[in-house]
Amino acid sequence: MNIPPVPRGIVAEIVSMTLDEDLGGRGDLTSLATIPDGARAKFVIAARTDGVLAGVQAADEVFDQIDETIDVQWLVRDGGELQAGAVAARISGPARSILTAERAALNFLGRLSGVATLTRRYAAAVAGTGAVVAHTRKTTPGLRALELQAVRAGGGASHRFGLDDAVLIKDNHVAVCGGAGEAVRRARAFCGHMTRIAVEIDRIDQLAEVLEAGAESVLLDNFSLDDLRLAVATAGGRVTLEASGGVTLEGIRAIAETGVDVISVGALTHSAPVLDLGLDAA
Amino acid sequence: MNIPPVPRGIVAEIVSMTLDEDLGGRGDLTSLATIPDGARAKFVIAARTDGVLAGVQAADEVFDQIDETIDVQWLVRDGGELQAGAVAARISGPARSILTAERAALNFLGRLSGVATLTRRYAAAVAGTGAVVAHTRKTTPGLRALELQAVRAGGGASHRFGLDDAVLIKDNHVAVCGGAGEAVRRARAFCGHMTRIAVEIDRIDQLAEVLEAGAESVLLDNFSLDDLRLAVATAGGRVTLEASGGVTLEGIRAIAETGVDVISVGALTHSAPVLDLGLDAA
Amino acid sequence: MNIPPVPRGIVAEIVSMTLDEDLGGRGDLTSLATIPDGARAKFVIAARTDGVLAGVQAADEVFDQIDETIDVQWLVRDGGELQAGAVAARISGPARSILTAERAALNFLGRLSGVATLTRRYAAAVAGTGAVVAHTRKTTPGLRALELQAVRAGGGASHRFGLDDAVLIKDNHVAVCGGAGEAVRRARAFCGHMTRIAVEIDRIDQLAEVLEAGAESVLLDNFSLDDLRLAVATAGGRVTLEASGGVTLEGIRAIAETGVDVISVGALTHSAPVLDLGLDAA
Amino acid sequence: MNIPPVPRGIVAEIVSMTLDEDLGGRGDLTSLATIPDGARAKFVIAARTDGVLAGVQAADEVFDQIDETIDVQWLVRDGGELQAGAVAARISGPARSILTAERAALNFLGRLSGVATLTRRYAAAVAGTGAVVAHTRKTTPGLRALELQAVRAGGGASHRFGLDDAVLIKDNHVAVCGGAGEAVRRARAFCGHMTRIAVEIDRIDQLAEVLEAGAESVLLDNFSLDDLRLAVATAGGRVTLEASGGVTLEGIRAIAETGVDVISVGALTHSAPVLDLGLDAA
Amino acid sequence: MNIPPVPRGIVAEIVSMTLDEDLGGRGDLTSLATIPDGARAKFVIAARTDGVLAGVQAADEVFDQIDETIDVQWLVRDGGELQAGAVAARISGPARSILTAERAALNFLGRLSGVATLTRRYAAAVAGTGAVVAHTRKTTPGLRALELQAVRAGGGASHRFGLDDAVLIKDNHVAVCGGAGEAVRRARAFCGHMTRIAVEIDRIDQLAEVLEAGAESVLLDNFSLDDLRLAVATAGGRVTLEASGGVTLEGIRAIAETGVDVISVGALTHSAPVLDLGLDAA
Amino acid sequence: MNIPPVPRGIVAEIVSMTLDEDLGGRGDLTSLATIPDGARAKFVIAARTDGVLAGVQAADEVFDQIDETIDVQWLVRDGGELQAGAVAARISGPARSILTAERAALNFLGRLSGVATLTRRYAAAVAGTGAVVAHTRKTTPGLRALELQAVRAGGGASHRFGLDDAVLIKDNHVAVCGGAGEAVRRARAFCGHMTRIAVEIDRIDQLAEVLEAGAESVLLDNFSLDDLRLAVATAGGRVTLEASGGVTLEGIRAIAETGVDVISVGALTHSAPVLDLGLDAA
Repeated sequence: MNIPPVPRGIVAEIVSMTLDEDLGGRGDLTSLATIPDGARAKFVIAARTDGVLAGVQAADEVFDQIDETIDVQWLVRDGGELQAGAVAARISGPARSILTAERAALNFLGRLSGVATLTRRYAAAVAGTGAVVAHTRKTTPGLRALELQAVRAGGGASHRFGLDDAVLIKDNHVAVCGGAGEAVRRARAFCGHMTRIAVEIDRIDQLAEVLEAGAESVLLDNFSLDDLRLAVATAGGRVTLEASGGVTLEGIRAIAETGVDVISVGALTHSAPVLDLGLDAA
Repeated sequence: MNIPPVPRGIVAEIVSMTLDEDLGGRGDLTSLATIPDGARAKFVIAARTDGVLAGVQAADEVFDQIDETIDVQWLVRDGGELQAGAVAARISGPARSILTAERAALNFLGRLSGVATLTRRYAAAVAGTGAVVAHTRKTTPGLRALELQAVRAGGGASHRFGLDDAVLIKDNHVAVCGGAGEAVRRARAFCGHMTRIAVEIDRIDQLAEVLEAGAESVLLDNFSLDDLRLAVATAGGRVTLEASGGVTLEGIRAIAETGVDVISVGALTHSAPVLDLGLDAA
Repeated sequence: MNIPPVPRGIVAEIVSMTLDEDLGGRGDLTSLATIPDGARAKFVIAARTDGVLAGVQAADEVFDQIDETIDVQWLVRDGGELQAGAVAARISGPARSILTAERAALNFLGRLSGVATLTRRYAAAVAGTGAVVAHTRKTTPGLRALELQAVRAGGGASHRFGLDDAVLIKDNHVAVCGGAGEAVRRARAFCGHMTRIAVEIDRIDQLAEVLEAGAESVLLDNFSLDDLRLAVATAGGRVTLEASGGVTLEGIRAIAETGVDVISVGALTHSAPVLDLGLDAA
Repeated sequence: MNIPPVPRGIVAEIVSMTLDEDLGGRGDLTSLATIPDGARAKFVIAARTDGVLAGVQAADEVFDQIDETIDVQWLVRDGGELQAGAVAARISGPARSILTAERAALNFLGRLSGVATLTRRYAAAVAGTGAVVAHTRKTTPGLRALELQAVRAGGGASHRFGLDDAVLIKDNHVAVCGGAGEAVRRARAFCGHMTRIAVEIDRIDQLAEVLEAGAESVLLDNFSLDDLRLAVATAGGRVTLEASGGVTLEGIRAIAETGVDVISVGALTHSAPVLDLGLDAA
Repeated sequence: MNIPPVPRGIVAEIVSMTLDEDLGGRGDLTSLATIPDGARAKFVIAARTDGVLAGVQAADEVFDQIDETIDVQWLVRDGGELQAGAVAARISGPARSILTAERAALNFLGRLSGVATLTRRYAAAVAGTGAVVAHTRKTTPGLRALELQAVRAGGGASHRFGLDDAVLIKDNHVAVCGGAGEAVRRARAFCGHMTRIAVEIDRIDQLAEVLEAGAESVLLDNFSLDDLRLAVATAGGRVTLEASGGVTLEGIRAIAETGVDVISVGALTHSAPVLDLGLDAA
Repeated sequence: MNIPPVPRGIVAEIVSMTLDEDLGGRGDLTSLATIPDGARAKFVIAARTDGVLAGVQAADEVFDQIDETIDVQWLVRDGGELQAGAVAARISGPARSILTAERAALNFLGRLSGVATLTRRYAAAVAGTGAVVAHTRKTTPGLRALELQAVRAGGGASHRFGLDDAVLIKDNHVAVCGGAGEAVRRARAFCGHMTRIAVEIDRIDQLAEVLEAGAESVLLDNFSLDDLRLAVATAGGRVTLEASGGVTLEGIRAIAETGVDVISVGALTHSAPVLDLGLDAA
């Protein structure tokens, strides 16, 4: 699986901020008090429930910032499946350092694996249809790059990263422009040739207008299954069609079977429960 | 309700990082393309489902960093209850700026209100017992201060903030020290008089030893209800007793009724689903 | 003209770095020594030669970081033309502060106006053809967002901002993939539906292959005019065609007249001479 | 040649900012999509035209921040001459990493080598006279330290670095003080014994006054050759004399032959065209 | 001795700021000018007067940030005693780098060793009594973590680190609350179970009230020896008693002998003279 | 008195770091717990002992970063004398905010006023001679700019700020060069015309050599009074002569009377005791 690394500067910055909040000015008082300076130990990171691993890059950065002599061997990589009880990594080195890093590393791994695990379930639900499951911008502040990496690890597809790499015209923009078609035309005039232009519509009767205006992707917000099918027939493959709004694990396959290309799901990043991982003595 | 503000530097830093990831080098292409420079607009932030608001300070910082001329009037503050459809805030100002800030502000509000909402449910479940619901260190990387603020907004109690403001001896520390009592004694010798010392035990027979060693708070990890009651009787009010491990909304009241003082719940911060809030034209 | 502002955090950071390097630890020794603390003065920023203004946002940030009581009134905005001797702005306030800010503000204005001025000349050279002049990634380290803003002020078009908002497959990528078509297919499989895919070819015989593979934009590197015309005819409007390589002010119109859509010119940002602007007593 | 390194923190910061702007949140989509994870490759950095190399330290930092396993062997160092086609460095390592770093590294090298190349031409033009060519503060925002390093690589001399390491009294300061001599006296009274005091004059009749007041260096702004000669005779070696204003490659030797000590040239840093360097498969 | 390391991010940040202020944009002009690039040398860090060493971690970070090839061998560690003339460390490596780092490293070592040395004298003065000497928050801006480390190296005890890890109610808080007991009750209601609550009183008659309200530590500010003894008798070991205010080396033993548990001394960090250490050729 | 402000970016950074260390992630628990949100109060900053004020700029920045609605009226400015009991400033505003800022503001004021106070005493001791008292680079890490401002407030003179604004050749540099004269010549060849060159000698017989080599300032380290007088006679006013080493308040006047120009005193910044200032209810 081709899981792209996050640029190092971004990972280093969020990990540094995370350690600042956990270590304060004195560090890990408990380990300093109870673990002798030279003590070494071996641990494993193990899954408590089934799931999909993600966050290896962030966890590595945590251990490295705490103490670069900690040795971490991953038995599973981002996107790999874990059964309850499975060992994801073997960790050895200074006992103090490992225990100091434990919670920060697990907080990254648990959250990002939670995203990957939920994504995997959505992706499985549409398997065999032509649709892919994509993320939204409803990500955790500060963690977007890592969460989108986790979405990919779970088998999800990429959407625009943020406000500046593509255009997505929404209802509030349309209202100001006096029409979705006009909004698309303004965007086309403003942007360079390398920028994709998508537009959100919430009624099937807006479709012809945005197709005619040159939209390259149309987001069909809260459409009924019938309207989705009608949109697919109308577009005839000329543009990418994306469904969104109120998508559930139970309902997603029916949406996919309408023939849309992309189904975006905010819950992948905004409501995935943590995957329960723990650090155990080896 | 006395919801303490988070130190401004911390909020400014995470908001700045969040805007960096969303705005990139060119900002909000869609709004720049479709909204005229001088256009003004009015919006409301409205709840889509019932919940408890949190994150006002972070949202204010988002709007302020994007454009200090945006005017935000909160009708509800952190800790206030929202019914589905209720308006949390009225926002007016430059249309471009407000739409650029929308997603970042909602990402903070949604996540933090999700934490407050879940906390409120746990807190309600123990109401009338002597127990309080407390957070853990299983927080989102970079968001600890804001999430703990949200826990308070939901009616939860504070635990230690991080590794350096109190001692919490866990099983791995005990293993190295050769006993929980010895670990407590080392911590007492190491720390100054202003630092509280807690110790986690997972068997009732460890209780006497840690009491004798001078622990001030004992975390009873995954104890049965019977053992919790036994611990309460044994401790006789001399120390704070905290229950943790596998706590659910359904089971928490029974735990509280054993007489423990504190019940810590990781899910408050690691698995709270987002509260659905949206920005609507006013 | 719709010149988009650069996200504030980006401008604040580069201006802060610039002032750090100029002010050191003691600030402007000369002004501190020779200008009394309370002295006020009026100045103008005037053009010494003809050109197009750019950099107003950066200059404003310089004055603001030095002393927010400095008053700056712009008579011309980004994209406006200046004749030699014309006044771009009137500045009044504490004399010390204005003189301290002078060089940093002029360094931004001169460089960015230089970019806008050169761009305007290239844009004028293709006026009336269907082609636009676009920037490249050959920008000054740390100044990309501001320089691309200046390109727009000069009448140039946007290209991709950086490595992560669009795909541009170059010869070295093609070599690894064993063919331009295969490279395009890999990119399409990897990227989400919102990412545009461009590919650079250096021989006309590669065109059919990349069209067939689904490239959306083709960069024709160092093509003869005949080959550019052939490419335009072959593509038949299905993709965006971009010419690049060795483009000069003298030669660009002939290139534009071949019918290509975009002509990218590295010199806009890597070799534009400064526009000579000065601060004069008003 | 003794080319001093720039303090590491400064280089690390501007390189980090440069990579942030190029990599965004997802990094190099093209290389991630088309180059397999483990692929290795060899490249050279070659000159497309003749020039003087500079920027080795910055380029090394780029490669190092992207991937410290990239191996870079420089065949030429800062200040070395390159013929068109000459190889400046051999680079080997992970293909993805090298291609990701390519543009950022070349942007530093091209710009800084451009500065060194232009400086070398000015320095050659005054060779054999007693004058040296010096930079000004008209540098690129954020790049001052690196550009001054490039000036040295080209054979130029140092001037003051910024506002806080020496005093340079200009016409606006003189106007406030009511005379150049008074301005020099105020500066001498304000500054410690380790700070050099220079003053700019624009008329020969000001010279006696500033000499009498104790100026240590006098900048003769836009003086005719006759007035420069008169100033040299008048000063009689007691102070450093610097000529500036409207200096061109064609005119500089005549200026140097008047006997001035220093000729400062803003164009060295504000208008040097880039040196064309490219990354080729080895 | 168990001297806890300061979290690495904190040390790296203050050292980086320190080098920025010393190196400016051009670095160490003197060493660049006079020491050949490849010259190597050996030096020692030696004590000029008797004292206690502290600051090894900070000094190591200075050398490492300047040049990681500098080799530093410590013969004494934090908390170790130095006689005048004793060698604390042997340093070898590039001569330029070592001389560039010299002053910054010595500034950390001298100041922090000064703190340790003064603390050792206070600690010795109370040896054999039950009292410990503790620091206050009267620390040098930016250096708190390092100075508290130095206090421990000198044999001092920890107090609260800052405003957020424990409660210390002072006279101004009491005034607002209308009584020390009420202030304690408010603090207990506000804080979680892991936060210690101390209160400062300045009259013996306040003691009963704060004991009754549940204070865990009472700071007796500027009490006479008689009142201290009375407080010790009254408290009967139920709370920690701390004396503060006007403590001198001459008077501290008498205070300790009253039976108080802790004596806090602001001078440890706010007025310790530097320990004179120098870098000598080996 | 002309006390120059420190560049704002520098003050903002050290104050921000200082507040981070004091406020942690939760801020001032005590004030949050005991002071109602809307309570307002008035305080004064008063001197407990006689001294010279410094640090007003830093204290203002502390109050401003904590809460820009705090109003601070200074009755005395940097360099002003305070008698014990005198009020330096009146402060009014939100009680919580003022108490939260109290310690950080006083830590800056106390330390910097301590520097100014000690400098005033040294400066007074040489009053009427031709000598000035100057600082060294033995400053507190992170506080150099503020401490040198405080030295000026006390009546001291400026020396070089750091390693990059002037050359000061010391014994270790001389040793490598094989002579002080050779070291001076190397420095002159390396540096531009705006950089002053000083050299330290420790024997009178080195003086002729460095004068001949063109040193502009000579630091006479640990010279006897006789040798200082001999140096003054020998130099005959051609260079600045600086005495250093073992300077005490008792001995400095005799040194000044030898006729040296500058006496540098490390103790001004490395060993000044804090000036005792407090915050009292108004």
